[in-house]
Amino acid sequence: MQCFESEPLRLASGESLGNITVAYETWGTLNAEKSNAILLCHTLTADSHAAGPDGWWDDYVGPHKAIDTTRYYVLCTNVLGSCKGSTGPTSDAFPVITIEDMVAVQHACIQQLGIEQLAAVIGGSMGGMQALTWSLCYPDALRLCIPIACTSRLSTQALAFNAIGRQAILNHQRDGLVLARMLGHTTYLSGDLLADRFGRDLQDAKPDYSYNFINDFQIESYLHYQGTKFKDQFDPYSYQYLSKAISYFDLDRRYGDLKTAFANTTAQHFFIAISSDWLYPVSESKRMVQALVELGKPVRYATLHSPYGHDGFLLANEQLSQLLRSAL
Amino acid sequence: MQCFESEPLRLASGESLGNITVAYETWGTLNAEKSNAILLCHTLTADSHAAGPDGWWDDYVGPHKAIDTTRYYVLCTNVLGSCKGSTGPTSDAFPVITIEDMVAVQHACIQQLGIEQLAAVIGGSMGGMQALTWSLCYPDALRLCIPIACTSRLSTQALAFNAIGRQAILNHQRDGLVLARMLGHTTYLSGDLLADRFGRDLQDAKPDYSYNFINDFQIESYLHYQGTKFKDQFDPYSYQYLSKAISYFDLDRRYGDLKTAFANTTAQHFFIAISSDWLYPVSESKRMVQALVELGKPVRYATLHSPYGHDGFLLANEQLSQLLRSAL
Repeated sequence: MQCFESEPLRLASGESLGNITVAYETWGTLNAEKSNAILLCHTLTADSHAAGPDGWWDDYVGPHKAIDTTRYYVLCTNVLGSCKGSTGPTSDAFPVITIEDMVAVQHACIQQLGIEQLAAVIGGSMGGMQALTWSLCYPDALRLCIPIACTSRLSTQALAFNAIGRQAILNHQRDGLVLARMLGHTTYLSGDLLADRFGRDLQDAKPDYSYNFINDFQIESYLHYQGTKFKDQFDPYSYQYLSKAISYFDLDRRYGDLKTAFANTTAQHFFIAISSDWLYPVSESKRMVQALVELGKPVRYATLHSPYGHDGFLLANEQLSQLLRSAL
Repeated sequence: MQCFESEPLRLASGESLGNITVAYETWGTLNAEKSNAILLCHTLTADSHAAGPDGWWDDYVGPHKAIDTTRYYVLCTNVLGSCKGSTGPTSDAFPVITIEDMVAVQHACIQQLGIEQLAAVIGGSMGGMQALTWSLCYPDALRLCIPIACTSRLSTQALAFNAIGRQAILNHQRDGLVLARMLGHTTYLSGDLLADRFGRDLQDAKPDYSYNFINDFQIESYLHYQGTKFKDQFDPYSYQYLSKAISYFDLDRRYGDLKTAFANTTAQHFFIAISSDWLYPVSESKRMVQALVELGKPVRYATLHSPYGHDGFLLANEQLSQLLRSAL
């Protein structure tokens, strides 16, 4: 993991933030023209460790993989506001940040590396919001934008789930983080996947209910396990700030409408939405595709057929490999 | 509100429970044959006050309304385990109860009133589970069963949401109740309804985000208001016990399969499911209808067209009025 120290930044909120550290990792080699760099943008709870053992996208990033590190110089920065090496909140005195702020810091980092234009910016979920923001705010700084399982703005329902997660943390810090993770996990997976994987099976193949308040069902103990594990791996303040940034992301509000938002983009866009994603549904990606079509701009779209819901792009999927290969 | 004191009850868990009080309300007059009684079964958070000012089903119950109290003697009992007049937990030393236990207490109450057979048992959500249980456990004690927005068993996804709500309360009692209510409310409404009613509108028509951690969006303050109000109106222990009873309800597990479950029923069944209910989807009601069809038993089914999601049956709806009239 390497670090970049940015200049003080003026945030979307109007506040200023100085002494920003950005933790990042790279794979592959930057060519002489500095034209083969790909930036990967991560989700709310991930980090800069996209590839290699335990990397969150190791299925897709590496030598001769879909994102081929023998051809591309691949970077992943831990976002501003996170707790995985980059500057983030250690209290609620930290200013509220936005997706644009995260991208401004990434942009400064890329420029510092002497890269004027990225070959591609790729990300899923909150990472897709960053990819879109690159295309809208720095249109000359990328040739290809691949937002996956993304939306131009959260639905009201997704706003509600986000608010509940934050409320849990606001009340009870690390215990709240357990709850927020349990809720997040439930909404990131599809109902069908949950039914297929856990059904109503009881813990330890018990023959009957416990008739007490322990976890009876496998789904209950699975969620509790995930929540408890997460409590030790993530910071409650970071969760609050990143969740807020996601709720604030709204291209329609920011630009007036989607056609205006994409009016100045010059990159190719390739949207990938997941068939079973009920939190960031396919229709949301198609709204953006429609805006680009109406603008006469080049755009591709694919539905990723996966039963796994919103988190489907994080798992090994041959179709996603092929889509990424064809895009690059 | 009247009260009935039941004999000690042997619960599904094997525990015994004595000195059970059942709070109930009635409307209309019991005829000489005692053949015109209708039992209404309420949801997790409701009470025996179904009709009259602030009654939870006043749109449907009253003189010349769909459930006509000039013709029928209508009863509603507060369920065992609740906190609205009937016996319920005041600590976690209370034994875990099931839907069958609730119905056993209702049955004792009805018998005490000298009613051998109910004209109908009607209920939505958890109330529908009670109506079904009447038909399966006391087949001779009712002529018509109307389960609304119901399921033979919660889906894995619904189990997950229930577990998260209980976890919140387990950790933090009344603060947890706020969260559990916020989550419940979100899942009881449809995504489209939330979008139509609240969209991404800001509080007090503010022109921009606050850039702090107050509630920015109307949906956030609405949920927080609902949760906070609920905290003073309901008991955290009751919520835990009723939520657990709902999670435990599983006709497939209890009887082996749905055809076996309905094998001994003699009542007419009329299932009503709500088009926009994603928590207890239409397909769940249709599974039960299919089992009854395969058994050659009389059954009717209707989809209630409502944009309001699972809670749609609690709101005024002309189609639901007509369906109830035609059923009765």
